[in-house]
Amino acid sequence: MPFAFTLLASDPAGARLGRIETDHGAVETPAFMPVGTQATVKTLSAADLEEAGARMVLANTYHLYLRPGEKLIDELGGIHRFMAWPRPVLTDSGGYQVLSLAELRRVSDDGVEFKSHLDGSMHSLTPEKAVSVQLDIGSDIAMVLDECTSWPCGRAEAERAVARTTRWARRSLDVCGPRVRRGGYERVLFGIVQGSVYPDLRERSAAALVSCDFPGYAIGGLSVGEPKRETFDVLARTAPLLPAEKPRYLMGVGLPEDIVEGVARGIDLFDCVLPTRNARNGAVFTSAGKLVVRNAAYARDERPLDPRCDCAVCRAYSRAYLRHLFNAGEMLGPRLATYHSVYFYLHLLSDMRQAIGEGRFAEWRRAFYESYRANDAQPDR
Amino acid sequence: MPFAFTLLASDPAGARLGRIETDHGAVETPAFMPVGTQATVKTLSAADLEEAGARMVLANTYHLYLRPGEKLIDELGGIHRFMAWPRPVLTDSGGYQVLSLAELRRVSDDGVEFKSHLDGSMHSLTPEKAVSVQLDIGSDIAMVLDECTSWPCGRAEAERAVARTTRWARRSLDVCGPRVRRGGYERVLFGIVQGSVYPDLRERSAAALVSCDFPGYAIGGLSVGEPKRETFDVLARTAPLLPAEKPRYLMGVGLPEDIVEGVARGIDLFDCVLPTRNARNGAVFTSAGKLVVRNAAYARDERPLDPRCDCAVCRAYSRAYLRHLFNAGEMLGPRLATYHSVYFYLHLLSDMRQAIGEGRFAEWRRAFYESYRANDAQPDR
Repeated sequence: MPFAFTLLASDPAGARLGRIETDHGAVETPAFMPVGTQATVKTLSAADLEEAGARMVLANTYHLYLRPGEKLIDELGGIHRFMAWPRPVLTDSGGYQVLSLAELRRVSDDGVEFKSHLDGSMHSLTPEKAVSVQLDIGSDIAMVLDECTSWPCGRAEAERAVARTTRWARRSLDVCGPRVRRGGYERVLFGIVQGSVYPDLRERSAAALVSCDFPGYAIGGLSVGEPKRETFDVLARTAPLLPAEKPRYLMGVGLPEDIVEGVARGIDLFDCVLPTRNARNGAVFTSAGKLVVRNAAYARDERPLDPRCDCAVCRAYSRAYLRHLFNAGEMLGPRLATYHSVYFYLHLLSDMRQAIGEGRFAEWRRAFYESYRANDAQPDR
Repeated sequence: MPFAFTLLASDPAGARLGRIETDHGAVETPAFMPVGTQATVKTLSAADLEEAGARMVLANTYHLYLRPGEKLIDELGGIHRFMAWPRPVLTDSGGYQVLSLAELRRVSDDGVEFKSHLDGSMHSLTPEKAVSVQLDIGSDIAMVLDECTSWPCGRAEAERAVARTTRWARRSLDVCGPRVRRGGYERVLFGIVQGSVYPDLRERSAAALVSCDFPGYAIGGLSVGEPKRETFDVLARTAPLLPAEKPRYLMGVGLPEDIVEGVARGIDLFDCVLPTRNARNGAVFTSAGKLVVRNAAYARDERPLDPRCDCAVCRAYSRAYLRHLFNAGEMLGPRLATYHSVYFYLHLLSDMRQAIGEGRFAEWRRAFYESYRANDAQPDR
């Protein structure tokens, strides 16, 4: 069915329960999207993602544009068929990776020129091209190209970025409007609010984008180095500027506790590489906190990664085995750790959805912190 | 139930259908054991192995002795629990890896002294220690330490190796006999026939070992560099020297066609790193031959790795996607390729078992070669 967002419940504490519908199925919100950078959530199969409870994944336009190329993905029937993932996919605009990975970037009103980090070839990404590349990749939700400010960011620079992000959002809509049906299913475009830490600029950015009537909105320019308090202050002021009947996406956030705080401030969608990237380095998230399973302390530990977790990894394998796999450089280590941490994130969100639906989110949040902070799973802390 | 081998059928062409029973379940033979070098079949989970049809896996004593150490595995309840694999496990003696991986080896009548390839520490492996390490690891089937000759091998050297292998086999039996119950299940010891390419030495080695009444026998010293014709000539002459009512294991062999030829000569058990090692490098085995999926030729190929395969990978993913994963250095590439190739080997064996049971192995073998040789899956061949 065509893209729709239904707000099912609002918790007194500010959290929202909702549902996004797409032609590739529904996503209950708040939801976490595992990051499938190069059309694969590193180490996991599509069947793993399904089994772990993922309902929407994120893929990176920058990476897929460079390799294998959006035209090839289009030719092969789009990203769902390419990565054997039948559920919704969201793509970013590519702008963030251009700024963080590519060299020789030049940002102008037209767009961004950059040098590929793979082979040094020159490319340009304009708002129009960011949309058309995402249409070829075939995501259900595409993001407009924005200018994401870093931190700290002077007011003049933040103001310029808001103006440019607004112009770029309008140019993006000129490509195909906020919704377009192609290849047998609907694609929608989300706008991105900028404005750094300046409340009036956030207001200005939000107002301009809301007048464009995007099917959904992201809050960008956060979690770029600023103190956590600042992140959540800006978030608390920005989220209410967005229409209640549209989904709100906090890009690139974050740790489990950041997601809890984002949900508390009315955010519906999250993505982050932390669970997958940390897992590949032998650090997993558990109900008791972060656990660095590659530590020698776990060499003889027969317990599962998280004794309160019922994922396929925790049901079968000990910390001692995981530690051995990492110690021996075995690929199964990153794979099992990734599966657990993705499962942990997805179930954290599903626990929150249940709590919101039952009007006890504030209580759930207190209980989460009691377990998560008090009993850090690392014995050496 | 205690270890037992039942010969269910003998094909006129020489192939045998049988069943090995162990306290960790039964294994229909001829069977292929995926190699789980460091207590993991690289990239695969225990659930994958089960799903792909594996019934027994091999683990390497040399690797596990060095890391994480057999005492740690024993402390954690043995290898089945450690790697979450509830079915039978066979371990090699460690001798082969000492000779191929370790430095500063000194072989004497007592055993082998060697320097760890991991940290340079000095160790010694005697026939007695090889058994006790395997008892600690907890395999269902342990192999005696043997002296494996390389190729070419002079007659005097081969004769010396047979004598030493015989003495070592007897010393191995002095540790715990050919069968021992420990940790709640039975462990058995297999002897290994040596003798290089010399028919009378093979006879002498087999006769000496058969008089020890091992529960099973391996044929060693083959596939060490000699021409294929020689391998199968020696095999054809050696297999009949072993008692028909005991399982016969051809160590470290081989390519799909080598296994077909081994089965034709009455072999019941096989192991080899080829399907898993090649897969990690982007080369898989298919019903039409070897396919190097990392080749650019597959960049736009929508077909599965093997259109005649019904494994989970072939049902979901295209060659183009696999090629992208390898090209992008994604771990999912080696993982999916490994799953397919292990599945291919396991189903090749199950096809052979069915053919033998129906008395049409010769016919099956002809059909296999028609497909396997005639239609190499590589378009660039």
